[in-house]
Amino acid sequence: MSFISVNPESDFSIHNLPYGIFSTQANPKPRPGVAIGDYILDLSQVSKLFVGPLMRNEAEEVFNQTTLNKLMSLSYEAWHEARQTIQRLLSKHEGVLRDNSELRSTAFVLQRDATMHLPAQIGDYTDFFSSLEHAINGVKLFVDGDKALFPNWKYSPLGYHGRASSIVVSGSPIRRPNGQMRPIDDRPPVFGPCKLMDFEIEMAFFIGNTPNKNGDIVPIDEAHKHIFGMVLMNDWSARDIQKWEWIPLGPFLSKNLGTTISPWVVTMEALEPFKVVNVVQEPKPFPYLYHADNYNFNVNIAAAIKPDNGEASVVARTNLSHLYWTMKQMLAHHTITGCNLNAGDLMATGTISGPTPDSYGSMLELSWNGTKPLTLSDGSERKFLHDGDEVIFTAHSERDGCRVGFGECRGKLIPALAL
Amino acid sequence: MSFISVNPESDFSIHNLPYGIFSTQANPKPRPGVAIGDYILDLSQVSKLFVGPLMRNEAEEVFNQTTLNKLMSLSYEAWHEARQTIQRLLSKHEGVLRDNSELRSTAFVLQRDATMHLPAQIGDYTDFFSSLEHAINGVKLFVDGDKALFPNWKYSPLGYHGRASSIVVSGSPIRRPNGQMRPIDDRPPVFGPCKLMDFEIEMAFFIGNTPNKNGDIVPIDEAHKHIFGMVLMNDWSARDIQKWEWIPLGPFLSKNLGTTISPWVVTMEALEPFKVVNVVQEPKPFPYLYHADNYNFNVNIAAAIKPDNGEASVVARTNLSHLYWTMKQMLAHHTITGCNLNAGDLMATGTISGPTPDSYGSMLELSWNGTKPLTLSDGSERKFLHDGDEVIFTAHSERDGCRVGFGECRGKLIPALAL
Repeated sequence: MSFISVNPESDFSIHNLPYGIFSTQANPKPRPGVAIGDYILDLSQVSKLFVGPLMRNEAEEVFNQTTLNKLMSLSYEAWHEARQTIQRLLSKHEGVLRDNSELRSTAFVLQRDATMHLPAQIGDYTDFFSSLEHAINGVKLFVDGDKALFPNWKYSPLGYHGRASSIVVSGSPIRRPNGQMRPIDDRPPVFGPCKLMDFEIEMAFFIGNTPNKNGDIVPIDEAHKHIFGMVLMNDWSARDIQKWEWIPLGPFLSKNLGTTISPWVVTMEALEPFKVVNVVQEPKPFPYLYHADNYNFNVNIAAAIKPDNGEASVVARTNLSHLYWTMKQMLAHHTITGCNLNAGDLMATGTISGPTPDSYGSMLELSWNGTKPLTLSDGSERKFLHDGDEVIFTAHSERDGCRVGFGECRGKLIPALAL
Repeated sequence: MSFISVNPESDFSIHNLPYGIFSTQANPKPRPGVAIGDYILDLSQVSKLFVGPLMRNEAEEVFNQTTLNKLMSLSYEAWHEARQTIQRLLSKHEGVLRDNSELRSTAFVLQRDATMHLPAQIGDYTDFFSSLEHAINGVKLFVDGDKALFPNWKYSPLGYHGRASSIVVSGSPIRRPNGQMRPIDDRPPVFGPCKLMDFEIEMAFFIGNTPNKNGDIVPIDEAHKHIFGMVLMNDWSARDIQKWEWIPLGPFLSKNLGTTISPWVVTMEALEPFKVVNVVQEPKPFPYLYHADNYNFNVNIAAAIKPDNGEASVVARTNLSHLYWTMKQMLAHHTITGCNLNAGDLMATGTISGPTPDSYGSMLELSWNGTKPLTLSDGSERKFLHDGDEVIFTAHSERDGCRVGFGECRGKLIPALAL
């Protein structure tokens, strides 16, 4: 328990302690903080209290950065020590912060008074395709209803390089894009605003630790030491633009219009109690992708659509544990050809679809390509997103009264530029 | 003419003045320089001599960076002023450097005494597919000999997001990757070292100027103001890994093993005299892609293979002007959905293949997928690359005795990791 009172429904109990980058009106410099209840602990104010052997020479530097990259670049063991220190500092049994009212007055900021920023400078961003249900639905809806799953899908976690510059923090508006589409297959393409604007429910993980060098790999049994923590992600997708562009080079402009992430990075250590068994993989993966330990996580995710000036309606509930491929496998696969990673790189899971129609992770699947419109609480229907719709993802894990949540990943769709 | 004597065969005449980042044993800090003949003008030593209205308040900062990003982030007009100042400082008619022996002794470094670094911190890297000949050959060799060109190819410059972290400067070794391949179509894939290691002759352009914001576009008629300059690029490609992975998400691990660029960034102003007419485009592009002015450049490119301890053999000669899509079109297309660019981003042309078999830009095409091996000067044959092969690209433009060259883009293929 913390001396900071935390509502049992809060995403940010002392078991969580996610890192983020925030600023305030009084101090506009972005800086690292940890969420606790309704507050943020300003780590730049308490860096001297990190007295463990791994953090004492690092804390002042890493907690005075404008991003989490330096913290992420420390070792797996240092992350553990930092978390232990923060948990101790916030404990109701520890007086160093609790009993120092002057320090408390500068070290705690109400979340409602803070502006959240991107947690890291993201060098490279990769999006995987790790949900079997999404892959199967994608083939049916996007390729050809009679086609089988791609032959390579069960042999490796497929992925593609995404655009890092257009990743934005929760709350940033997303503009409906203009682009080329071909609404009728045997006619020439047309240009104009996207008509099939979609979300994709994803989660993403930040890379940390000492990077591998170009030409070297991260072995599968070391992969977890390079995964710092997770965020929610909305991989906004322009389906009609995507359908016209994706062969032969994969998703490009249909995905780089903006990608939203939640601001709080939940560490893998906070998610440790929510580990569940991995999905059975058949065929058995190649040795470079095989790991015997569990690295699958029970995280409940909900997606809601809130029309302009309306109420939010939950349209999907899914779970991170539906993924076929684990994050360890995604990371090891990414480096097998020698691709060098850097602290602050981001890798996303791909759309997380469950086995039932209400657990699908995109409007494409939920409305079955527009053939089964969803009805929102105001009675309006949605095949795809309307201008003014705000899409809100939330996620949390819960077990034995211990709750670890991700906060919100939200973004409002604004009308296309008139070109 | 410069007071620095420049061999007429040099790539680095006073008409060129490419920017790069270099360091020396005496001063290991990477810093901006300009190539002139066999020398580098150390811009950090002469920043006070930039007295024009746009550069005088910027020069000290931008020329004391460890990358060119800040210089690239200045305006198109500031780039022009900087170039004029450097041309004046190096002119035989200008005494400020010529007659100051003390300054000359610190401001000039022999290129052979310098180590070159990546010219910029590359935030995002995009690879296009802008050569029609390469696209046609690719369909024949890689997809299906009977298939037509992709239906979207002539409507827009296709591209994909590449991996920025694995872009390395000329001279860095490239390791043959391990990965998954499926040598026999109806059998399961295998894992091991790539057997079909290839190069791709490309050129790439650095983005500069004030970036567009997420959700905004760069109009086609403004696109040239965001193109700072060009380098040579070898987009090393593992063809067997590529063939197994590329459907449905495009090139991924087959391309992120390492991408080599030449260290000297030749400005678009230096290339201005070598403009030639654009390739005729039919169908006529959508208005957002249409420009009436010429933005095609006559740059001769040669590719050579130098076996371990052997002599280099030229295996291909091609030309930048073969591209169907212009760099203005690539850039405008990239932003049409609202993707925000940053100074220091890199966009590559894709493999530049000409119309004749000796002008193809990859071993895949030159050896026609291994069916027509090339013979090197030592009598050895090549279908694809061998371990120990060094691949060397050079390029230059020449007209009326004025020569503008790119230096070298070279990299040696080293054996795969034993896994």
